[in-house]
Amino acid sequence: MDTLRWLDEENCIELIDQTLLPGKFKYIKAKSIEAVAKAIEILQVRGAPAIGVMAAMGVALGATKFRGKDKEKFYEYMETVFERIERTRPTAVNLFWALERQRGIIAKNAGKDVAGITAALIEEGKKMRVEDIKINKRMGANGAKLLKKGSRVMTHCNAGSLATADYGTALGVIRAAYAKGRIERVYADETRPRLQGAMLTAFEMVQEGIPCSLNCDNAAATLMARGMIDAVIVGADRIAANGDTANKIGTYSLAIVSKAHKVPFYVAAPISTIDYSLKSGAEIPIEERDGDEVRKIGREVICPDGVDIVNYAFDVTPAKLIAGIITENGVAAPPNRKNLAKLRK
Amino acid sequence: MDTLRWLDEENCIELIDQTLLPGKFKYIKAKSIEAVAKAIEILQVRGAPAIGVMAAMGVALGATKFRGKDKEKFYEYMETVFERIERTRPTAVNLFWALERQRGIIAKNAGKDVAGITAALIEEGKKMRVEDIKINKRMGANGAKLLKKGSRVMTHCNAGSLATADYGTALGVIRAAYAKGRIERVYADETRPRLQGAMLTAFEMVQEGIPCSLNCDNAAATLMARGMIDAVIVGADRIAANGDTANKIGTYSLAIVSKAHKVPFYVAAPISTIDYSLKSGAEIPIEERDGDEVRKIGREVICPDGVDIVNYAFDVTPAKLIAGIITENGVAAPPNRKNLAKLRK
Repeated sequence: MDTLRWLDEENCIELIDQTLLPGKFKYIKAKSIEAVAKAIEILQVRGAPAIGVMAAMGVALGATKFRGKDKEKFYEYMETVFERIERTRPTAVNLFWALERQRGIIAKNAGKDVAGITAALIEEGKKMRVEDIKINKRMGANGAKLLKKGSRVMTHCNAGSLATADYGTALGVIRAAYAKGRIERVYADETRPRLQGAMLTAFEMVQEGIPCSLNCDNAAATLMARGMIDAVIVGADRIAANGDTANKIGTYSLAIVSKAHKVPFYVAAPISTIDYSLKSGAEIPIEERDGDEVRKIGREVICPDGVDIVNYAFDVTPAKLIAGIITENGVAAPPNRKNLAKLRK
Repeated sequence: MDTLRWLDEENCIELIDQTLLPGKFKYIKAKSIEAVAKAIEILQVRGAPAIGVMAAMGVALGATKFRGKDKEKFYEYMETVFERIERTRPTAVNLFWALERQRGIIAKNAGKDVAGITAALIEEGKKMRVEDIKINKRMGANGAKLLKKGSRVMTHCNAGSLATADYGTALGVIRAAYAKGRIERVYADETRPRLQGAMLTAFEMVQEGIPCSLNCDNAAATLMARGMIDAVIVGADRIAANGDTANKIGTYSLAIVSKAHKVPFYVAAPISTIDYSLKSGAEIPIEERDGDEVRKIGREVICPDGVDIVNYAFDVTPAKLIAGIITENGVAAPPNRKNLAKLRK
């Protein structure tokens, strides 16, 4: 299933509206920069790698909207496109990485006219989508080796097909391991507040026929104490050069309880998620989202008026709690500065 | 506010239907043994101490339904009453403690006729309600001393007025400490799956005017890492003689992350919650509840068909993670076998 794709005939992006899952599987079209930005902001498309591809295609879409042949005006206009997309979500570094890559394409094709540059941006967006799938498959193969036969693996949030162009990072490892008979069951943390575990990970597992149990986030520790979990694999939104990892809220808590039960805790993410410019996780910007995400579940309001809400969308897991970071170029275990630097190519 | 009370004029129990909170504050009447049992099973009344009082009053209500004067038949009938109430919920020991106490009343009043025994059971039910409030106030005073001025205290589930006859255990400590200027803010874990933190604790705090923030359970660790939490106080459903504590699912996880951040983790519970017959938490029966509690939130179904659900309602926190157990007779700190034995009177 394609999470998102470029439509040549309409010069627009077609994407699964993930806010409708698991009830409704529906493709929508983003036909303007504002639609692209909103789709990222309201989580119609989410997951660091998918956001990266969406951003790159969004830049291409922006370019197709420019009218005229004046290159200086085109460059000025494109700055407004980059700025709008940059403003959507602060934590996932793939967004900024993808925009940087498209800036490079503009620079590299400076000798061409507006139509030529636009065509190059479209090609790059499509290329990043295809690359992402290949990267995930290599990551899956690298990660599957870490799991023993019959493993019961817990995951948090959704780092699956839907979080990427296809196949997934953490769920890519699970897919690859399942194909080799190494997965007995997947335990999906429901992942409050947006419930991506219940709504998206469980959906992907059911589609794929991989045995899957859903649990409340706060039950992870007791499942481990009962000996029900052999390993944990999660995705990442941004990894600092020292291995500290920002990921969906609750990841840090899960890493602490994993350590307490000696359950190995792995992160699966492409090299593009590693922000080598940051010394440690303390430098990663953490998005705070609207309190209504906690206050409401669908139509249900779950708390009284007058209560304040804390809603950090991400947290930072220190590298020392992580057994290994699985990338397309190999596994950094332990995930320290030196081992992560070696994977950079 | 009375969580539950005996109505002399109708020989029945009036209770707040807690499944309607925070949207609707409504008293309902339980007029049959089946209504009493169902109210406990579907969580119209919940919280270990409140379940204890409900069970005691339920036995009294059962006695009022007996027709005739034959004592042997009365005793036989009363066994069916005890059995029905015993079957409701396995983890909270206060239920069994309250039933035991009413069995004692029947034995003690064996010289009286059916009407006399029934009157004694009613008196005992009412007495346990009044005692519970007094106990909570003593517990509150004992616990408040443990907190420094301006503390930011996290709690899990609802161990408040609504979990007791009134005042609360963990929230009783918070009420007492707030009155002394020792509480700056309460952080309420929402407490999936039944959301008692969002629906009941936040409701009590707003009613009382105590500043309160609501957070998803999985955010507790990051709030601690950010230095936002000074102490954690929770209630208990059953405490073994060695201090191991069964409480709402998620408590164990919270205790682990508290330890990791050196945040003191306290349990507040009456002596009646301590099951001195159990050597350790491994012996505490843990209730598993219907998967629909996880699958649905109000009218919203949050996951696809075909996914399994794990729904342990409670977990066990080892004594070594607990800084102190606060009771009406003092604080066991650390909560080991010796210190807990000393509090028994």
